[in-house]
Amino acid sequence: MQRYFVSTENWKDDSVTITGDDAKHILKVMRMQVGDDFICCDNKGRTSLCEIIEVDGNEVQTKIVKEIERSAELPVSVTIAQGLPKGDKLEYIIQKGTELGAFSFFPFAADRSVVKWDNKKAVKKKERLEKIAKEAAEQSHRNRVPDILNPGSFSDLLKMTEQYKIKIVAFEEEAKQNEISHFASALSTAEIGDSILCVIGPEGGISEKEAALLDDHGFLLCGLGPRILRTETAPLYLLSAISYHFELKG
Amino acid sequence: MQRYFVSTENWKDDSVTITGDDAKHILKVMRMQVGDDFICCDNKGRTSLCEIIEVDGNEVQTKIVKEIERSAELPVSVTIAQGLPKGDKLEYIIQKGTELGAFSFFPFAADRSVVKWDNKKAVKKKERLEKIAKEAAEQSHRNRVPDILNPGSFSDLLKMTEQYKIKIVAFEEEAKQNEISHFASALSTAEIGDSILCVIGPEGGISEKEAALLDDHGFLLCGLGPRILRTETAPLYLLSAISYHFELKG
Repeated sequence: MQRYFVSTENWKDDSVTITGDDAKHILKVMRMQVGDDFICCDNKGRTSLCEIIEVDGNEVQTKIVKEIERSAELPVSVTIAQGLPKGDKLEYIIQKGTELGAFSFFPFAADRSVVKWDNKKAVKKKERLEKIAKEAAEQSHRNRVPDILNPGSFSDLLKMTEQYKIKIVAFEEEAKQNEISHFASALSTAEIGDSILCVIGPEGGISEKEAALLDDHGFLLCGLGPRILRTETAPLYLLSAISYHFELKG
Repeated sequence: MQRYFVSTENWKDDSVTITGDDAKHILKVMRMQVGDDFICCDNKGRTSLCEIIEVDGNEVQTKIVKEIERSAELPVSVTIAQGLPKGDKLEYIIQKGTELGAFSFFPFAADRSVVKWDNKKAVKKKERLEKIAKEAAEQSHRNRVPDILNPGSFSDLLKMTEQYKIKIVAFEEEAKQNEISHFASALSTAEIGDSILCVIGPEGGISEKEAALLDDHGFLLCGLGPRILRTETAPLYLLSAISYHFELKG
């Protein structure tokens, strides 16, 4: 069933009002009418089945038919700290990473990042990334849209590490050396509700210098199997493995 | 280090001859010269460090400096049977699936496949998919290039199922019903060297009819967590989880 993320101020105890693009989508694209229903999420875990009771121009008035409890969120909060990659790979990582349950994304300028974050275009770019995350969250039936944090430097990344209980970094050199246990042992120490910070380098991976600094800051250097993964594939591997570990393996 | 897949007829006991596109790449793109070395794979598990001893026009003559044993292949053979998706998603699945260790790919026309495999363009299309697989295998340091099987029908898929010990199908309905254990229990029964057939539907997933037939043929209907994955994301989830299960978790 169609679902929309509606900000909390549009919610009352027994009703939700939808405006703007979502209302347009409901009326023009889905061609819904009074009596039709869909799912609304408030991005704080509340998920309700809503029925249209009135349409006023581009405003859709609904009543809440039923509260839906079930959460589609990963039991751990995974933040993907992604070294800025080339081209549209960041958009791709955010779309797929959202499907796979990421809690938030932090793009950072790594030693080997070829592209720089263009501050002139920053606002528009971040809006576009947020739109991609919102649409992927709706399509994958999530209860919240992951946060896109403001892109920063490597030292900004080091500053934010204290908030996280488990800190890992995908390190190609470890993969080449056939390191196989760090990532699995990190997950075995994780508990429901923990926050996990995963650092992935850009094309070419993180530098030896960055690896040493992350090591100093309590990061576990992890190989992700014997094959060398592209920068945009590594976060999907991490999120899939985390989902398998916590949601399927039980 | 740069690596190239070279067909067995170009191998002698102590030397490898590189011709065609790979030779061009070595000479024009990598600008290598006599004395430079790179890795050659014969796609049957043989991986050798080779040094250039002579360049004759577009032919590169090497001597084998050292045999390299280590395999970067998944310890189980995973075939991805992919319901034909829209647009360039099949190319994307083959590129990423190769990075993640797939053994072979079988595209099939599913009930909900919107696109049809165009037999007029079939040869060219398959060549393109094979090129994508070869390049992804080289980039990810694999020892073999996955096979791209000739696309077929759903009944062709049913015919090939006997060859596989473990047969699973990603089924959205199971995901919605919060089914969490089938995939993990399937992997727990798998042993090194086993062959695993993973069926993924196109956009919209496999139909109830297809699900019932696969069920009759010994397939396990598996949800892949509480989030609904796009058709091109499901195979990456399966391969990542299989790699985590066999290569990292130990």
